Amino acid sequence: MTSQGGSAIIPIEGLKQKIRDIPDFPQKGILFKDITPLLADGKAFRAAIDQIAERFSDRGIDLVVGVEARGFIIAAALAYRLHAGTTLIRKPGKLPYKTHSTTYALEYGSDTLEIHQDAVQPAQRILMADDLLATGGTMAAAIDLITGLGGKVVGVAFLVELVFLQGRGRLKDQEVFSLIQF
Amino acid sequence: MTSQGGSAIIPIEGLKQKIRDIPDFPQKGILFKDITPLLADGKAFRAAIDQIAERFSDRGIDLVVGVEARGFIIAAALAYRLHAGTTLIRKPGKLPYKTHSTTYALEYGSDTLEIHQDAVQPAQRILMADDLLATGGTMAAAIDLITGLGGKVVGVAFLVELVFLQGRGRLKDQEVFSLIQF
Repeated sequence: MTSQGGSAIIPIEGLKQKIRDIPDFPQKGILFKDITPLLADGKAFRAAIDQIAERFSDRGIDLVVGVEARGFIIAAALAYRLHAGTTLIRKPGKLPYKTHSTTYALEYGSDTLEIHQDAVQPAQRILMADDLLATGGTMAAAIDLITGLGGKVVGVAFLVELVFLQGRGRLKDQEVFSLIQF
Repeated sequence: MTSQGGSAIIPIEGLKQKIRDIPDFPQKGILFKDITPLLADGKAFRAAIDQIAERFSDRGIDLVVGVEARGFIIAAALAYRLHAGTTLIRKPGKLPYKTHSTTYALEYGSDTLEIHQDAVQPAQRILMADDLLATGGTMAAAIDLITGLGGKVVGVAFLVELVFLQGRGRLKDQEVFSLIQF
């Protein structure tokens, strides 16, 4: 299929070059993949969203779920492109209505995510979206929230995947697509 | 102009009905306008983004700037629709590269926003976007960050405006457009 508005095809390698390495962020020893140069380039941003969307364009997606905060960017643009709605999974205390929450283990400590209790209607077809697949723990927790509300997760999309962290192992019942791999 | 993908026109009143009042959030005495039911409705989300975008579609927008975190949703979808890039204004410590920051007064205390030093190229044409115009203090600070980097702010877009808070008074040098007013 063709993309809306005639965006040029940009090879993945061209998109990859728009991602910048930041050493020691958010803590010493971590090499952070900074996607902001890609997002700021209108052609690259559009090409990235179009190429992710095309993978899921025939799945009847009702809702694209974004995980706070960079995930909102990917989810909102995908939702617009796919004629779907978008909903938010957030850190505790940020959502105004009644919520469900889940707490999951991190390498050190734990983290909690929340979703509105009415964020998903039963049997809605859901695309999960985030900017980065690292260990997969956050996305696995996000999927638990959605399935707990009766949503049907039909795919999981990432702009970037850090393959060496083997996050796909945590998402093995899902169809996972990442546009750019490191 | 027509909108992409043939989204139906939804009257503003129909969009307004998708916004839910939440009493006493985030603190007692505040009536919070919850936009999540609108975002979750694919037709309503698309209609809202299209109607905001049409207002600025002939301005040669290079970059749509979103303010953390709900602003990212509006900015990303507008950027996709306008064939522009998007960039992020965030809370302190969230951006990985070198930043500029600004601190601004709130009713009680103060808050700080950050932007990457290279987020905007000089003379780029910028659309500022957020979900809600309340007192305007956050957006005024965000505009300061953009103009400090040499960007030209050509418009300021909100999904919702709380007119009684008179936030436009803080943005009086700007072209301000809000889709839904309360």
